[in-house]
Amino acid sequence: MKAPIEFYFDFSSPYGYLASTRIEAMAEKHGRKVNWHPLLLGPAFKTMGMPIMVTIPLKGAYSLRDFPRSARFHGVPYNQPAPFPVSTLAAARLFYWLKEKDERRAVSLARALYKAYFVDGINIGEADNVVKVAQAAGLDASEVRAAIADQRVKDLTKAEVDASLAKGVFGSPYIIIDGEPFWGMDRLDQVERWLKGPF
Amino acid sequence: MKAPIEFYFDFSSPYGYLASTRIEAMAEKHGRKVNWHPLLLGPAFKTMGMPIMVTIPLKGAYSLRDFPRSARFHGVPYNQPAPFPVSTLAAARLFYWLKEKDERRAVSLARALYKAYFVDGINIGEADNVVKVAQAAGLDASEVRAAIADQRVKDLTKAEVDASLAKGVFGSPYIIIDGEPFWGMDRLDQVERWLKGPF
Repeated sequence: MKAPIEFYFDFSSPYGYLASTRIEAMAEKHGRKVNWHPLLLGPAFKTMGMPIMVTIPLKGAYSLRDFPRSARFHGVPYNQPAPFPVSTLAAARLFYWLKEKDERRAVSLARALYKAYFVDGINIGEADNVVKVAQAAGLDASEVRAAIADQRVKDLTKAEVDASLAKGVFGSPYIIIDGEPFWGMDRLDQVERWLKGPF
Repeated sequence: MKAPIEFYFDFSSPYGYLASTRIEAMAEKHGRKVNWHPLLLGPAFKTMGMPIMVTIPLKGAYSLRDFPRSARFHGVPYNQPAPFPVSTLAAARLFYWLKEKDERRAVSLARALYKAYFVDGINIGEADNVVKVAQAAGLDASEVRAAIADQRVKDLTKAEVDASLAKGVFGSPYIIIDGEPFWGMDRLDQVERWLKGPF
């Protein structure tokens, strides 16, 4: 078995969402698993000294046009959420808690969280909404609430985010295959070719 | 005849160079001309409050890996130049001077300047080297030197750069088709589809 594809993303990232709809099928085709790593872009942007993209003059306005167009290009449903972006700390904590117990279920939850935010317009920046999405996915609401507030889960999430920064991950999606990094939904074509062999 | 494709690029931009090797064939296939607009990324980055990419922590190191890999992916020769990036003011002035006289020849010169910098490692940030490239392309050296120093050509170039900023152009390559903007070499797939019709 080849090493898994390391897939880093922020739950508030449109391009991370788009990539999440493709990455599993691409990996499967080439006999790989995907290791999902939600991260928080805030700390990465701080390291880079960068502002949040949609607030940047010129680029911000372009981005809001490119998000839905890229979604249409790839045939993925997309509704620009507001507020945007949001803090995805609660979503990330819930994911890492569930990943310890049942990794495939955590991936299903990640998809549900992305759909909630980018299709159904649910503000997953609010912990209460994260709980609702989890509940709809069959998880126990009080257990989920406890997990999000659990210091051990907070520490676990922080350790994952710190580890991603230490690996040089600075954007979403960010994909690593056998040590080779690819940043952006628009590198999936290179990812696909790399899976056939380094070029 | 459909409106030309507006193609904005900086002579010091690796992705602009990659796009320059594709854009004419793509346009021709869809019955369009290409209007080449060299610009200076410096003023755009200043408007955005952004540093130069390769100096950004994390992203800078990634970029230096992505430039040659993207070139290999697209089958385009590429040697990372040093120094990088460089000021492309002299190159832009020469282009706009020549464009007034002979647009196709200006486009050939643009290709020669890109090749000089990204294949042959000639520092086109130095006016003397720009003159040499122009000379090799059959232009008269003293005429070229005079053009680069001509206040009218300086003003013309500044007006072009200001006009690109006023249109919201903030990167390289930046392509506009019938008012629709596309930023990045990695949007050429969307450019190609858009040329068949808006989506």
